[in-house]
Amino acid sequence: MGDFDLFKLIRDEMEIVEARLYENVDTPETLLYEASTHLIKAGGKRMRPGFALLAARMYQDDISYAIPLATALELVHMATLVHDDVIDNSSIRRGTGTVKCLWGNRISIYAGNFVFAKALAIIAEYKRSDILEVIADASMKICEGEIVQMLSCYNVNLGLKNYLRRIERKTALLISLSCQVGAMLSTSDSRQIEALRRYGYDLGLAFQITDDILDFVADEETLGKPIGSDIRQGVITLPALYALHHDEHRDELARLLSSPQECQQSTEHIIDMVCESDGIEYAYSVSQHYANRSKRHLELLPDTPVKETLRELADFILARDY
Amino acid sequence: MGDFDLFKLIRDEMEIVEARLYENVDTPETLLYEASTHLIKAGGKRMRPGFALLAARMYQDDISYAIPLATALELVHMATLVHDDVIDNSSIRRGTGTVKCLWGNRISIYAGNFVFAKALAIIAEYKRSDILEVIADASMKICEGEIVQMLSCYNVNLGLKNYLRRIERKTALLISLSCQVGAMLSTSDSRQIEALRRYGYDLGLAFQITDDILDFVADEETLGKPIGSDIRQGVITLPALYALHHDEHRDELARLLSSPQECQQSTEHIIDMVCESDGIEYAYSVSQHYANRSKRHLELLPDTPVKETLRELADFILARDY
Repeated sequence: MGDFDLFKLIRDEMEIVEARLYENVDTPETLLYEASTHLIKAGGKRMRPGFALLAARMYQDDISYAIPLATALELVHMATLVHDDVIDNSSIRRGTGTVKCLWGNRISIYAGNFVFAKALAIIAEYKRSDILEVIADASMKICEGEIVQMLSCYNVNLGLKNYLRRIERKTALLISLSCQVGAMLSTSDSRQIEALRRYGYDLGLAFQITDDILDFVADEETLGKPIGSDIRQGVITLPALYALHHDEHRDELARLLSSPQECQQSTEHIIDMVCESDGIEYAYSVSQHYANRSKRHLELLPDTPVKETLRELADFILARDY
Repeated sequence: MGDFDLFKLIRDEMEIVEARLYENVDTPETLLYEASTHLIKAGGKRMRPGFALLAARMYQDDISYAIPLATALELVHMATLVHDDVIDNSSIRRGTGTVKCLWGNRISIYAGNFVFAKALAIIAEYKRSDILEVIADASMKICEGEIVQMLSCYNVNLGLKNYLRRIERKTALLISLSCQVGAMLSTSDSRQIEALRRYGYDLGLAFQITDDILDFVADEETLGKPIGSDIRQGVITLPALYALHHDEHRDELARLLSSPQECQQSTEHIIDMVCESDGIEYAYSVSQHYANRSKRHLELLPDTPVKETLRELADFILARDY
């Protein structure tokens, strides 16, 4: 997210979350500990804990009670990442080797399960079954979405609806959930909780679309992984989807994208074709649609510095300043 | 468990659990549904739901409220099995192809996560954070145990303590947990809950030891998988452990068991060596020790038909009548 500091209002709490991540994966099993801490060290934007803490801060100044929940949300996210790396056979994530690459499939599966169970143990301590319910429900939907993503690879006949469903499950659900449960901890106003949930959902869609755009146009250093990794795996994201439907070379593009071999060997050629179509611009416009919609949900919320920050984030996406 | 009908007191409820398993893995994603129902169809003894229902029945006649929890426990167990099959690269379980073999690693990982998330959603509905806490805690320990098991393969220098730790995590914890949470649903007498938890723990150890013995002496049809599957994977169980320490051919056995290649190629020879030692008899005696100990925990419980059945189960193991 470039220079935009989403978390300026919760910097102290975010530092504590960072320390708690390490404390929480403590286990006498050295290998499990090493794999889990490697996952944490690999970093990431910590968006899920960030959104949960911001949502909680909307209603209360002291949000120390939200720190364990924020930590648990990052652990849930990490659990899905480590399993995804097994499934995608990825060796690089965020500029460093994956757990799968360094320790193999077995440790990756166990580390994912361990980290998820640890998150549950933290959540259990809140004694809030309503929070557990939304997390369990989102976890099921995320699994379903991963299957949809898998089945959609190399399939050039799917449309916008399928794409939106995939990015909902991949990103929007967990960001939306983070906003929702953060708010649930600190207010009982269900309209405001719902507004924050929807903000997170639309923002998450906008965010994932920009992420998918960056996989075509960013440089490797910024991205932390090689560009074109979606194409290489046959994952057809919005820019490619547009080109597949509207570009003059769409038949040739369909031939390439439906072939696992071509996706590997002609990645750069495919990227060029997509970039020469209006796919990138189109994807920006869809991302902006969701960023704008996310701002509208904020209207229901009290005027606080948090609201201002959340609006600035949407504006940051709208300004294409990343 | 041969002819012993552990579940005679809860037959109607067990039938409902069976139906609920299918209802609960319902999802619009066909592949996920097929893989999950395949897991259910492959069967199993349903010991975990059985123990939970029996523990609940100890204190109340109407245990319909315990059926969802019992179902959730079987789903948790199934989630660990499907991930284990990825890790062990197993193609046969309970006489039928594994999800991993039929659908591959990706679907297996997602199906495991999906089924586990579904179990959580069921548990959340009870609004009992104490139950969630024990389940989350057991899940973490099970992951740790799986790592210990993995690291212990082909290692001929480990002893009884390491073996007990492995079977605790593999079997005893979840059976113990099932007894515990079943009791937690229907009584608040913490001494009795603890007695049932301990019964399940010791019985689970006894049960896993007999299972490990059967992997040396059973026939393939009864076992539902080829005998010697532990040896083939370098998993050193109690009979082999005894032979490694006490048999006159222990150096030769150590050479074979520490070699992945020999474990594959000389499986029958290794089985013969273990069977010719006193390893099987020794393992029986340890199993009987735990079965006897499990019976002693029952003394704290009220005299009910359930208590009688739980005692009969321990006696059944003691009589080597399986």
